[in-house]
Amino acid sequence: MDLLKKVSFNDKGLLPVIVQDINRGEVLMMAWMDREALKKTITSGKAYFWSRSRQKLWLKGESSGHYQLVREMLIDCDEDALLIKVEQIKAACHKGYRSCFFRKINEEGKIELIGEKVFEPGKVYK
Amino acid sequence: MDLLKKVSFNDKGLLPVIVQDINRGEVLMMAWMDREALKKTITSGKAYFWSRSRQKLWLKGESSGHYQLVREMLIDCDEDALLIKVEQIKAACHKGYRSCFFRKINEEGKIELIGEKVFEPGKVYK
Repeated sequence: MDLLKKVSFNDKGLLPVIVQDINRGEVLMMAWMDREALKKTITSGKAYFWSRSRQKLWLKGESSGHYQLVREMLIDCDEDALLIKVEQIKAACHKGYRSCFFRKINEEGKIELIGEKVFEPGKVYK
Repeated sequence: MDLLKKVSFNDKGLLPVIVQDINRGEVLMMAWMDREALKKTITSGKAYFWSRSRQKLWLKGESSGHYQLVREMLIDCDEDALLIKVEQIKAACHKGYRSCFFRKINEEGKIELIGEKVFEPGKVYK
């Protein structure tokens, strides 16, 4: 498909991907895809990434069951970033929150929890 | 403030930043901040980035007047990505669209224009 030809990967072979909840509009996370992760995402309809910490292909939700079902893929003007809109099963964040962006900077410049915990990581990752 | 202590920059001293329209929920762009850009963003309330193509500090909107007024800053679970929610003056994309993500992959796998042009780049950048 056009996307695989069009898109530029960085000097490490990776592409930044923003994941947005298609129903709520909430930004859920940012992660990285290599060419293989992008291909698997396109063919399977589930989001795959390259895990930089584990240095391996990673099906989002493989251990938790919290898959991301890809409903829309958008490419940016420079063709070096993707935005995917997904149906998020349960939650995106491994810390138990729906979005990885569960903390904001408040008016005193302090980090403040704003997300609500929707699962207990200790019970899901065994 | 806490954010400057907390956040991790990558091996090039950069941090990926997602910019979201605070009113419409639309993802507008992804760009990079170095420590100085982050400090200037915090102190001025306008989004500053590090321009990788021009290798310099970049006040978003400096040539177009299309500034991003930062209303909220969120940090992700790994503390290596930011989400900023902004009031976008006019449009974020230098190609004339409100969002840099103005093209989607359609059902045939082709790239399809979905954004609406809100200004003419040739008239704005002189």
